Amino acid sequence: MAFEGQVITCKAAVAYEPNKPLVIEDVQVAPPQAGEVRIKILYTALCHTDAYTWSGKDPEGLFPCILGHEAAGIVESVGEGVTEVKPGDHVIPCYQAECKECKFCKSGKTNLCGKVRAATGVGVMMNDRKSRFSINGTPIYHFMGTSTFSQYTVVHDVSVAKISPEAPLEKVCLLGCGVPTGLGAVWNTAKVEAGSIVAIFGLGTVGLAVAEGAKAAGASRIIGIDIDSKKYDIAKNFGITEFVNPKDHEKPIQQVLVDLTDGGVDYSFECIGNVSVMRAALECCHKGWGTSVIVGVAASGQEISTRPFQLVTGRVWKGTAFGGFKSRSQVPWLVEKYMKKEIKVDEYITHNLTLGEINKAFDLMHERGCLRCVLDVHA
Amino acid sequence: MAFEGQVITCKAAVAYEPNKPLVIEDVQVAPPQAGEVRIKILYTALCHTDAYTWSGKDPEGLFPCILGHEAAGIVESVGEGVTEVKPGDHVIPCYQAECKECKFCKSGKTNLCGKVRAATGVGVMMNDRKSRFSINGTPIYHFMGTSTFSQYTVVHDVSVAKISPEAPLEKVCLLGCGVPTGLGAVWNTAKVEAGSIVAIFGLGTVGLAVAEGAKAAGASRIIGIDIDSKKYDIAKNFGITEFVNPKDHEKPIQQVLVDLTDGGVDYSFECIGNVSVMRAALECCHKGWGTSVIVGVAASGQEISTRPFQLVTGRVWKGTAFGGFKSRSQVPWLVEKYMKKEIKVDEYITHNLTLGEINKAFDLMHERGCLRCVLDVHA
Ligand SMILES: NC(=O)c1ccc[n+]([C@@H]2O[C@H](COP(=O)([O-])OP(=O)(O)OC[C@H]3O[C@@H](n4cnc5c(N)ncnc54)[C@H](O)[C@@H]3O)[C@@H](O)[C@H]2O)c1
Ligand SMILES: NC(=O)c1ccc[n+]([C@@H]2O[C@H](COP(=O)([O-])OP(=O)(O)OC[C@H]3O[C@@H](n4cnc5c(N)ncnc54)[C@H](O)[C@@H]3O)[C@@H](O)[C@H]2O)c1
Ligand SMILES: [Zn+2]
Ligand SMILES: [Zn+2]
Ligand SMILES: [Zn+2]
Ligand SMILES: [Zn+2]
Repeated sequence: MAFEGQVITCKAAVAYEPNKPLVIEDVQVAPPQAGEVRIKILYTALCHTDAYTWSGKDPEGLFPCILGHEAAGIVESVGEGVTEVKPGDHVIPCYQAECKECKFCKSGKTNLCGKVRAATGVGVMMNDRKSRFSINGTPIYHFMGTSTFSQYTVVHDVSVAKISPEAPLEKVCLLGCGVPTGLGAVWNTAKVEAGSIVAIFGLGTVGLAVAEGAKAAGASRIIGIDIDSKKYDIAKNFGITEFVNPKDHEKPIQQVLVDLTDGGVDYSFECIGNVSVMRAALECCHKGWGTSVIVGVAASGQEISTRPFQLVTGRVWKGTAFGGFKSRSQVPWLVEKYMKKEIKVDEYITHNLTLGEINKAFDLMHERGCLRCVLDVHA
Repeated sequence: MAFEGQVITCKAAVAYEPNKPLVIEDVQVAPPQAGEVRIKILYTALCHTDAYTWSGKDPEGLFPCILGHEAAGIVESVGEGVTEVKPGDHVIPCYQAECKECKFCKSGKTNLCGKVRAATGVGVMMNDRKSRFSINGTPIYHFMGTSTFSQYTVVHDVSVAKISPEAPLEKVCLLGCGVPTGLGAVWNTAKVEAGSIVAIFGLGTVGLAVAEGAKAAGASRIIGIDIDSKKYDIAKNFGITEFVNPKDHEKPIQQVLVDLTDGGVDYSFECIGNVSVMRAALECCHKGWGTSVIVGVAASGQEISTRPFQLVTGRVWKGTAFGGFKSRSQVPWLVEKYMKKEIKVDEYITHNLTLGEINKAFDLMHERGCLRCVLDVHA
């Protein structure tokens, strides 16, 4: 609390330009204003959305910025009117806010809170439509309302989940994005029932979390599909019961799955971000009831398509963001489930590095054995 | 019952070639075999699926055939093993069968019975994979398992709904297709809740039945969209509270609706069969929960598309066939509802003609004031 009300100068990884290595800089982090929380980030992981914006392919990407959205830390100080967290609280910043009072939150039908989106979508804070990050007076944009590739960050109070102080932050940081997305796609969006046949396209962190969620839901067959056959070994530990590599087949992959399942799967999940796989995932669903959930994020401008007959004959096409979890209400519950060993987290962490090694961590994302790389932000 | 076990020669409208006028012919109708029912058709209406196949645009259309699938009649005789109907029963032939024992029927999740589809899809009966219709020994294909443009037809027993003998057959014939499709799209497929905002694209019989269903479900706003502004007057009687003609706007129609509804509708229904309208219908749905149901049947080969982000941000894309109603179980219930004046039927009938005037009836379908034309088959 030594810094309360003062600007903090600390290390952060700044993305100055698309596709150029991040630069570790001394960054000034302004104190939190009304309704804001300043967090000391202890651990952050990297997710594909960081890589996507960094690559320059995201037309809404703003530079220079501080990326990062899968992290855990401790509240350093809070702005006026903040009541739900206080300095010292252990927290997970949530890119998907939950205000509990907007049209979306009140609907009870979605987790897509709209409260701070107008600001977080353009890299600033709601209060004054400005950034809290700067380097020698030059502002640096926020990212997804979280910017966790920094030793300190400022977020809106509606974007902070307070978690158990017992939880190991170097693990539960993963509960900020990929793992909940996969579990929630199964539990909240698809609502998979016991006995279902499930197909999962793409066995990265998100796809494996879908497998874990499907296993917990009692699915009878969990078919993993990946172009990397090495994924099968690890995927077995997450509940995958069968594996298909599309490269081993001449027929379209949807046909392979329909044949394998006597008519199609009950639920399918696209966890890659490839629009032609999204189509295959829909079309491998069983006529009459098969439901396909899009989890992967496709590059901007790309479109999905299919024949309308696929839907007229009973298939359902859906999508999910953060697995439909209400962030502030449910992330603490996921942390509890992890501590009771009801969900995996450690198993997704294949690499540990420091903030200073972040460019190496981005490179690792393209390597086969990598699921999640966790950075120690203060090492 | 004078004809039991014998071939009946009667009048039928035969489609010899795509797009050529139907010809009223003396047709031989063979007696029903095991599991089959011969029905004296009294009244039949025309639906767009008849016109579609007749036009030659349906790649699965087979000629010569006897079209027709929205009708009512009386059982003339039954084949071996038929227990659920007997001669004299009043019935509605159902192009969507219900066997109660196949994988689809037993799932409880769909009305798309698979029992006789392999035969009805190729214009024949299951038993011997042959047609019961012929003219001087030349077989004439069945259509949709119903072929109601004939004074007598033979259908599978799983395709016959037994209805109240009190029901006026010249009205309830409409409960064989269009009206249930619209009502069921709302009640079974979308499950519209009270207070919902609903958009309906296309205000023909199907769209008006959607309006009626939405009104019954307690929708707060029911917005009709049609390129024919004349439809508004009649549509008001079916529950439409607001009308939008896309031609009156420069903005894409999805944007017009989003603006009109502060973010989008809760449910939308495409009742035209136009793939670009299907896209608009999805995209006018509210972020987070809006659900769009495809009811219209697009021409073969056409595809729907959208950005996957539409689904990732919570919209749901579905479709419906026969409104999700289980035909044999639920058509009799719809007939009861009509007789208790809980649903409209008479109001959809704008024209009455005879079987001999069937080509005129097809022409009428393109005329503005026409919803359904009912043919007296024995006049
Ligand atoms: N909707 C959300 O809220 C949300 C949240 C987090 C991540 N995501 C998205 O989920 C996706 C998956 O994330 P991840 O971290 O698991 O990614 P990842 O790169 O670790 O995993 C992707 C997997 O897909 C496989 N793959 C690639 N192309 C394939 C193909 N054509 N057929 C079959 N398999 C193929 C790869 O071999 C890899 O195993 C990304 O698009 C990410 O942006 C979405
Ligand atoms: N899914 C099913 O089980 C099922 C069952 C029956 C009918 N259908 C289909 O439902 C559709 C509607 O049937 P119907 O009998 O009501 O047809 P219809 O022709 O009577 O009505 C269509 C309406 O759409 C309007 N329209 C045409 N183009 C438009 C556009 N671009 N924008 C707005 N409005 C437009 C027309 O003016 C007309 O009022 C057809 O495609 C039919 O094949 C489907
Ligand atoms: Zn992420
Ligand atoms: Zn909110
Ligand atoms: Zn029809
Ligand atoms: Zn069946």
